[in-house]
Amino acid sequence: WSGPAAVAGALERAMDELLRRAVPATPVYELREKTPAPAEGQCADFVSFYGGLAEAAERAELLGRLARGFGVDHGQVAEQSAGVLQLRHQPREAAVLLQAEDRLRYALVPRYRGLFHHISKLDGGVRFLVRLRADLLEAQALKLVEGPHVREMNGVLKGMLSEWFSSGFLNLERVTWHSPCEVLQKISESEAVHPVKSWMDMKQRVGPYRRCYFFSHCSTPGEPLVVLHLALTSEISSNIQAIVKEHPPSETEEKNKIAAAIFYSISLTQQGLQGVELGTFLIKRVVKELQKEFPHLGTFSSLSPIPGFTKWLLGVLNAQAKDHGRSELFAESESKEISEILGGPVNETLKALLSSNEWVQSERLVRALQAPLMRLCAWYLYGEKHRGYALNPVANFHLQNGAVMWRLNWMADASLRGISSSCGLMVNYRYYLEDTAINSTAYLGSKTIKASEQVLSLVAQFQKNSKL
Amino acid sequence: WSGPAAVAGALERAMDELLRRAVPATPVYELREKTPAPAEGQCADFVSFYGGLAEAAERAELLGRLARGFGVDHGQVAEQSAGVLQLRHQPREAAVLLQAEDRLRYALVPRYRGLFHHISKLDGGVRFLVRLRADLLEAQALKLVEGPHVREMNGVLKGMLSEWFSSGFLNLERVTWHSPCEVLQKISESEAVHPVKSWMDMKQRVGPYRRCYFFSHCSTPGEPLVVLHLALTSEISSNIQAIVKEHPPSETEEKNKIAAAIFYSISLTQQGLQGVELGTFLIKRVVKELQKEFPHLGTFSSLSPIPGFTKWLLGVLNAQAKDHGRSELFAESESKEISEILGGPVNETLKALLSSNEWVQSERLVRALQAPLMRLCAWYLYGEKHRGYALNPVANFHLQNGAVMWRLNWMADASLRGISSSCGLMVNYRYYLEDTAINSTAYLGSKTIKASEQVLSLVAQFQKNSKL
Amino acid sequence: WSGPAAVAGALERAMDELLRRAVPATPVYELREKTPAPAEGQCADFVSFYGGLAEAAERAELLGRLARGFGVDHGQVAEQSAGVLQLRHQPREAAVLLQAEDRLRYALVPRYRGLFHHISKLDGGVRFLVRLRADLLEAQALKLVEGPHVREMNGVLKGMLSEWFSSGFLNLERVTWHSPCEVLQKISESEAVHPVKSWMDMKQRVGPYRRCYFFSHCSTPGEPLVVLHLALTSEISSNIQAIVKEHPPSETEEKNKIAAAIFYSISLTQQGLQGVELGTFLIKRVVKELQKEFPHLGTFSSLSPIPGFTKWLLGVLNAQAKDHGRSELFAESESKEISEILGGPVNETLKALLSSNEWVQSERLVRALQAPLMRLCAWYLYGEKHRGYALNPVANFHLQNGAVMWRLNWMADASLRGISSSCGLMVNYRYYLEDTAINSTAYLGSKTIKASEQVLSLVAQFQKNSKL
Amino acid sequence: WSGPAAVAGALERAMDELLRRAVPATPVYELREKTPAPAEGQCADFVSFYGGLAEAAERAELLGRLARGFGVDHGQVAEQSAGVLQLRHQPREAAVLLQAEDRLRYALVPRYRGLFHHISKLDGGVRFLVRLRADLLEAQALKLVEGPHVREMNGVLKGMLSEWFSSGFLNLERVTWHSPCEVLQKISESEAVHPVKSWMDMKQRVGPYRRCYFFSHCSTPGEPLVVLHLALTSEISSNIQAIVKEHPPSETEEKNKIAAAIFYSISLTQQGLQGVELGTFLIKRVVKELQKEFPHLGTFSSLSPIPGFTKWLLGVLNAQAKDHGRSELFAESESKEISEILGGPVNETLKALLSSNEWVQSERLVRALQAPLMRLCAWYLYGEKHRGYALNPVANFHLQNGAVMWRLNWMADASLRGISSSCGLMVNYRYYLEDTAINSTAYLGSKTIKASEQVLSLVAQFQKNSKL
Repeated sequence: WSGPAAVAGALERAMDELLRRAVPATPVYELREKTPAPAEGQCADFVSFYGGLAEAAERAELLGRLARGFGVDHGQVAEQSAGVLQLRHQPREAAVLLQAEDRLRYALVPRYRGLFHHISKLDGGVRFLVRLRADLLEAQALKLVEGPHVREMNGVLKGMLSEWFSSGFLNLERVTWHSPCEVLQKISESEAVHPVKSWMDMKQRVGPYRRCYFFSHCSTPGEPLVVLHLALTSEISSNIQAIVKEHPPSETEEKNKIAAAIFYSISLTQQGLQGVELGTFLIKRVVKELQKEFPHLGTFSSLSPIPGFTKWLLGVLNAQAKDHGRSELFAESESKEISEILGGPVNETLKALLSSNEWVQSERLVRALQAPLMRLCAWYLYGEKHRGYALNPVANFHLQNGAVMWRLNWMADASLRGISSSCGLMVNYRYYLEDTAINSTAYLGSKTIKASEQVLSLVAQFQKNSKL
Repeated sequence: WSGPAAVAGALERAMDELLRRAVPATPVYELREKTPAPAEGQCADFVSFYGGLAEAAERAELLGRLARGFGVDHGQVAEQSAGVLQLRHQPREAAVLLQAEDRLRYALVPRYRGLFHHISKLDGGVRFLVRLRADLLEAQALKLVEGPHVREMNGVLKGMLSEWFSSGFLNLERVTWHSPCEVLQKISESEAVHPVKSWMDMKQRVGPYRRCYFFSHCSTPGEPLVVLHLALTSEISSNIQAIVKEHPPSETEEKNKIAAAIFYSISLTQQGLQGVELGTFLIKRVVKELQKEFPHLGTFSSLSPIPGFTKWLLGVLNAQAKDHGRSELFAESESKEISEILGGPVNETLKALLSSNEWVQSERLVRALQAPLMRLCAWYLYGEKHRGYALNPVANFHLQNGAVMWRLNWMADASLRGISSSCGLMVNYRYYLEDTAINSTAYLGSKTIKASEQVLSLVAQFQKNSKL
Repeated sequence: WSGPAAVAGALERAMDELLRRAVPATPVYELREKTPAPAEGQCADFVSFYGGLAEAAERAELLGRLARGFGVDHGQVAEQSAGVLQLRHQPREAAVLLQAEDRLRYALVPRYRGLFHHISKLDGGVRFLVRLRADLLEAQALKLVEGPHVREMNGVLKGMLSEWFSSGFLNLERVTWHSPCEVLQKISESEAVHPVKSWMDMKQRVGPYRRCYFFSHCSTPGEPLVVLHLALTSEISSNIQAIVKEHPPSETEEKNKIAAAIFYSISLTQQGLQGVELGTFLIKRVVKELQKEFPHLGTFSSLSPIPGFTKWLLGVLNAQAKDHGRSELFAESESKEISEILGGPVNETLKALLSSNEWVQSERLVRALQAPLMRLCAWYLYGEKHRGYALNPVANFHLQNGAVMWRLNWMADASLRGISSSCGLMVNYRYYLEDTAINSTAYLGSKTIKASEQVLSLVAQFQKNSKL
Repeated sequence: WSGPAAVAGALERAMDELLRRAVPATPVYELREKTPAPAEGQCADFVSFYGGLAEAAERAELLGRLARGFGVDHGQVAEQSAGVLQLRHQPREAAVLLQAEDRLRYALVPRYRGLFHHISKLDGGVRFLVRLRADLLEAQALKLVEGPHVREMNGVLKGMLSEWFSSGFLNLERVTWHSPCEVLQKISESEAVHPVKSWMDMKQRVGPYRRCYFFSHCSTPGEPLVVLHLALTSEISSNIQAIVKEHPPSETEEKNKIAAAIFYSISLTQQGLQGVELGTFLIKRVVKELQKEFPHLGTFSSLSPIPGFTKWLLGVLNAQAKDHGRSELFAESESKEISEILGGPVNETLKALLSSNEWVQSERLVRALQAPLMRLCAWYLYGEKHRGYALNPVANFHLQNGAVMWRLNWMADASLRGISSSCGLMVNYRYYLEDTAINSTAYLGSKTIKASEQVLSLVAQFQKNSKL
C-alpha cells in the first residue's frame, strides 16, 4: 500500500537525490580557477526536474531544500573569519591580509550560486532563472516556503539578475502597428493597469498621439520585460478614458499640439524581475527618447491609479464603526448631507455603497462625496506609511524616481475597476526633470514627500476635518 | 618655478581629488537598497578623466591609487568577522547567523566595485571597463604598477566581466564576404597567428572551404570579441600554407569532400577579456554549428603554432654549451652528420643557424634536423611544465579544453615567422568530442596530458637520445 | 442661379482643363529621345485632381474623357500605314522598311500611355495606377463608363502593370505570428473566401500545420498583392471547417504526419491587378517552397468553393417550372422521395428551401438530396461553359493552371455562406505536378477539361437522369 | 575531315536549331490571352546555350540571327496596315477602327520580344538580359554584328529595360564602411573615373566629408547599377587630388563647414543599361537626400573630367600642320614664348610633348600654356558638336540634366591619367536647382548651352586668338 505520505516521501527523496547530483561542489580555494565547468547535463538535470514539477507547492519544496541544504558552509566561514581576525592582531604584509579576506569572501558564497551560475550559461538558462525567482516570490507570498535561507537565496538571485539585466544590456524598443503580432499580443496580455479589449483597442494604443515602449534584454530582442504606455497631449491629463477610449484628434500627429507626455501605464511583464529597477530606468530612457523626437516637449507626468484606496477607506470606516459607532472622517455638514441622500447613517450605508459601485449613478452623491474623498485620498497617499515610506506602492515607485505628488483627479477613472479600487480617483505624479535627482535623494534618505499645493492643501483639510 | 615634479604632484593631487569625488560612498548596510544611484555625471567624470590620460604610466598610477585607496574597509571586515565568530560560540537562530554573514559579505565588497558597477550602466560603459582592464593587465606586465591591491582589483574586474560576458549573452556570428567591411577590417587586423596581407587574402579566408566565426556580446552585435578561423578539408592538415596561401579546390563547396574541420587560428581581440574563457566556448559552439551544417563531419582538430619552441631550444643549447661545452641533445651520429654539413661544432653553429632562419634553404640540413628537432619539440610540449601544467600556452589552452596532443608536423609553417618561432614545426590538437570532458578534468585535476602514439613515441626517443 | 447641371458643367470643364495641362504631348518621332521628361508637377497634378474626386461616377467620367480624348492619332496611324504599304510595293533596303514600321509603331502608342508612364515614376505612382485600374474595372462593371476607348485604355494599363508586376520582381513572403500586425490585419481583412473572425482565428491560420504566403512587389515589401492559405494534412481534405475551425493535432508539426498540401483560399488583395496572373505564379512558387521544406510531400490539391451553384440551380428550377410545370432534374424515385419529405411539389418547395438554408437541419432531406445535387453540381462545373471555357470562375482558374477536377465533396462547407452559395458542396482541384503543363495547354487550346472518374461518373449520371 | 568552316557550320546549325526551339511562337491575335506561357525549360535553353558561348563573336552571331530571323512578320504588318487604311476610307464605328489598330499594333511586336519577356520571368532573367544587351552594344561597337535588325532589337531591349528599371523601382543606397565588403569591392572595381588603389583609399571615399550612393533595383538590393561619389566641401572644388588623396579636415563632420556638394565621379556599373537614364535620376535623388541631411546646403556642382580633349587637341595640331605647316591656335606672342621654352617649332614639339606628359615638370611651360589651353578647352567643350549637341559626352550628360558649364580649372587633375587625357584640365558643371528644368529643355530642344561668364569669356578669347 502506497498512500500520499509514501508518495511524498518518494518525491522528497528524489529531490534530495537530484540536488546531490546537480548542485556543483565548491572547489577548494586553491583550485577555484582550475576546476572545469560541470558537464552541461548536470545542471540541465535540475532544469528539467524543476520543469516537471506541476504544483507550486512542489517547486517551493525543492527551492526550500536547495536554500537550506546548499548554502554557505558556516564552519568554513568561521574558520576564515578567525584567520582574518588573527591577522588583525599580528599585522603582516598587505598581501597576506588581502588573501585572507579573499578566502573569507570565497567561503561566503553559497553553494547554490554555482548552480545558478552554470544554469545561466545554458540556452534559455537566464529566462529559466527569471521564472524560478517568480516562483520563489510567489511561494513566499503564499507562505509555501519561508525562513531566512530562502530570503537569502532570493537576495542572491536578485543580485545575479541585477547584474545581467543591467541597463547597459537593455534595448529600448518602440511598439507600433508594424511590430510583430506576437509582441503586440504579449503587450496586450500584460497590460494590467487598463486592460486591452480588442485588436483595434491595441492599434489605438500604439497609434498617433500615443507611444508604447519596452525594454528587452539584448540577448532576447522582441521580448518585453517592462512596458510603458504614454499619451502625447496638450496638457496634463486628468481622465484615463480620454486616453484609452476616445479617438485621438487626428490621424497624423501635429507637433505643435503636443506639449505633455502622460505615462498612463507601466507594467513589469516578468514577475521574477521584481526589485531590479527596470521601471525607473525605462522612464528615464523614454524621457530622453521623447526629448530627441520633440525637442520642445517640457511637461512629463504620470496619470496613475491608486490601488488600495477603497480598501483602506473601508477599513477605516469599519474601525471607526467599531470604536465609536460613528464616523469621524466627515465634517458635521458633510455627514448630514450624505445621510440625507442615502437615507441612513453615514458609515454603514457608505460601506455598503462603496462596495457596490452604484453610488456613481447619483450625481448628487458624487458631488457630496467629492470634497471628503479627495482629502481622505490625499491623506492616504501622503500620510499613510510603511517603514516611513509611502504605503501606496505606485506612489512609492514614482516618489523614489523623484516625481512630485502633483494633482488628485476626481472621477478620473470611471471604469468599474477604477470605481472599485479607488472610488474613481487618480493622481498625477509629475516629473520636473531638473529636480528628480534631488527629490529622489530626499525621499529615499529623509523620507520627505514632495507634493504640490493642491495635495498639501487637501492634506491640511483632512487634518482639520477628519480624525483617524 | 614649476618643474616636472611639481607637475607630477599636481597630477597626483588631481587624481586624488577625482577619486574622492567619483567613487561612490558605500551606504551603510541598512540603507544599501534605499540609496539612490549616484548622479550619472559622478561616474562619467572618472571615465572622461581616465580617457584624458595619454600615458600608460599615468593611467597605471590612477588605477594603483584606486586599488589601494578604495578597497575594503579592513576594520569593518574585522568587526563583522568578530560578530560571526561570536555567534559561532553562542548559537542563536539561523536568521541571526545568516544576517551576520550577509553583513560580513557586504563588508568584503571593495568600494571601487561600486564605481565599476555604475560605469557599466553608462552608454559604452562596459566597453570602457574592458579597455581599462586591458590597460591594467599591460601595466602589470610592464611593472608600471604592482602589488596585492592591484591584483585584487584585477580579480574583481575579471569576475564582473565574467558575469557580463557569460555565454548566455554571446552571439555567434559568421563572417563572409557580405559582412560589413568594418568587421572584416577588424578581423584582419586582429589576426595575430597568420597575418592577413591583403583584401583578397581576407576574401579567401571567408570563402569556400573556410569558415570564420566570432563571438560578439548581444549588446554590441558586429563587434568581434574572439575570432576563430577554420578550414574544411578531407583530412587533418599538416601544413598551414596549404590553408592560408593555396586556393581552395573549387568555388563551390562539395559536401562530400569535407571530412575534417581544422581550427587554424583563434585570437582574442580584446585583451581586457583575458581569462574570461571565451575561446573555449567559441570552439564548442562552432563545433555544434558545423555539426548542424555537416551532419557527417566527424574529425575536429587544430593546426596550432608552437610559440616559444625556438627560444626554448636556444636556451637549452646555451645552457649546455656553458655546462658541458658540448650538446647532449643529439645522438652521436646526429651530431656528426650535422657537424659535417655545417662544418663546425654542433652547438655553436646550430645556435647561429637557428637565429638566422637560413638553414631551411639546405635540404640536407632539413633532413638531418628532422628527427632530433621533432623529439625535442615533443618534449618541449609534453614535458616542460609551469606549475604542473604545460608550459606552452597554446598547448595548455587546448589541453584544458580536453583535446589530445595528436601529431607534430615537420615543415608545417615555412613562413619566416614559422621558422623563427618554432623551426617550422606545428602541432595538431585533436578534439574527440566524446572524450573532451574527461580529458579536461584529467588535465586540470591530475595534470595528465593525453597524447597520441606519435607524440609519446617522440617523447620516448627524446628520453633515450637527449639529455637536458 | 447655379444648379447641378451648371456644377457638372464646371466640373467637366475643370477635367478638360486638367487633362490638357497634365497629359504630356507626344514628341515628334525624331525627337522622341531628346525630349526631357515633363516636370514632376505636371503629372502629379493629375494624381491629386483624381484623388480629390470623391464619387466613383466622377472618377469614371474623368477616365472616360482621358480614354476618348488622348488616345491614338488616327490620322498619323493612317499616314504611317500608307508609308509602310508603299514600301511593300516598292521594295527598298531593310533599314527603310524597319524604320517605317517603327514610325508606325510609335504612332500606335496612345498619348495617355505617356501620362501613365510618368506617373509610374512618382513616389507611390505605381500604387496609384493599380488603384486607378481598380476604379476603371469597377466603373465598367457598374456601366459608369463604357465603350471601346475605355476598353483599350484598360488593356494598355493591364499591359503596363503586367511588365511591372512580372514574376521576376515579386517576392514570396511567409506570414507567421511574428509578422507585423499591419500585415496580419490586411491579410485578415482581405480573406474573402473563409472570413477571419478574431485575433486567435488569425493566429491559427498562420500556426502549425498551416501556411500563409503572399507575393509583394519588391518595391513595396510587406504589402500583400495576392494571398494563399494552405493546410498541411495527411490526406486530401473534404471539409473546410476541419481546416479553419478545428485545432491542429499538436502545437509542433510532425513531418511524418504531413503528406498533402491543401490550398483552401487564394485572394487577390488589389483588384487593379486582375488579369495579371499573380495567382497562378503564386501557386507555382509556393509548391516549390513546400517541396524544399518537405522533400517527400507529393500531394497538392485545392479545397475550393463553388460560387454560383445555388444561383444556377435556382435559375434552372425556375426555368423548368415555367417551361414544363415540373422538374426534369430528378429521377422519378428521387422526386417522389423529396416530395414526401417536403410535403409538396418538388420544384416549388425546393426553390423555397434552397433560398432559406434550413434544409440542412433535416438529416433525411440531406440524404435524399445528396445524389441529385452531386450530379447537378458536377454538370454545373464540367458542362456549363462561357465561350467554351468553364463558366464557374474558380474552376476556370484552376483548370487554366493545369489542375484536374478531382472530387466533389458533399457537406464540405456547412457554414451559412457555404450552404447559401453552393448547397454546402466544395470541390478539390488536384495538381499533378508532372501534368499541369499539358493539362493547361489542352484546356486553353482545345478547351478540354481533365476530370477524375468520380466527376466523370457524376456527369454521366446527370446525363442519364436529368434534363436541362 | 572537319575543319573550322565545318565546325562553324555546325555551330550555326546548332544556333538555328536552338532559336527554332526556344523562341516562342506568336499566337494568333484572337488567342493572345489564351495561350499558356511556354514551358520554363524552353526559354532557359536559350539562356544556357548563350551562356556556353565563350567568344564574343559567337554571341554576336547568335544575336544577329535572332534579330534578323525572329523580328516582325512584314506580311502581317502590311495586311493589317491595309485593314486600317481601308477603314479610313469606309468609316465604321470606333470599336472597329480601334480593334484594327490593335491588330496592327500586335503585328508590329517582334517575335523575339516574347523570348525576352519570358526570360525576364526566370530567376536571374532580368540580370541575364542586362548582360545580353551589354554584349550587343559591345558587338555593335566592335562591328561584330551590324544592320538595322540588330539596331531595332537593341531598341526593343532598351525599351523593356527602361520599363523595368524605372525610377519607381530603384532604391537609393548609401555606402559606408559598414556596408558589405562585397559591395565595397564592386564599387571600388567599377570606379573608372578616379581609380581606387587600396582598402584605405576606399575607406576614405566613404568616410567623413564624403558620400557614396548607388541605385539598386528593388529585386536585387545591394547590387549597384550606377554609383555617385561626392565630397562635402566649403566651396566648389577646383582640384581632384584634394578630394581623393588628401585627408579630410577632421574625423567627425562639422555641419557648419559644409556649404557645397561636389559630384566627382558617376559610373554606370552595368553597360547593358546604357541609355536608361539612371545617372540623371541618381543625381536628382541624391540632391534631395542631401537637402534632407543638410537643410542649408545650397551649392551643387560636379568636378568633371574632360575625356578626349588631348586627343582632339592633337588632332587639330596635326591637321593644321598638314594644312598650313604652322599653328593658328596660338597668338603670335604665345607661339614665340612656347618656342623659346621648347627650343623648336610650336606645333611639332607640342605634339610630342602632349603625348609624353613630361611638360608638367616645367613650371615655365605650365605657365605659358595655361592661357591658350584654357581657351582651346573652353571651345572644345562649348563649340564642338555632334548632331548639334556637345561632342564631349560628359558635357552632354550634365547639360542634358540642366547644369551650367561653370568653370574650367587649370591643373585640376595632376595624375598621369588627368594629364594624358585632358592636359590636367577639369571642369565644373554647376546645378542651380531652380533652373535645371528650363536649362534642360533649352539644351535638348534648341541645343543652347548655358555657360558662365568665365567659360564664355574663354570662348571669346578663343574666337579672337585661335583659328581652326
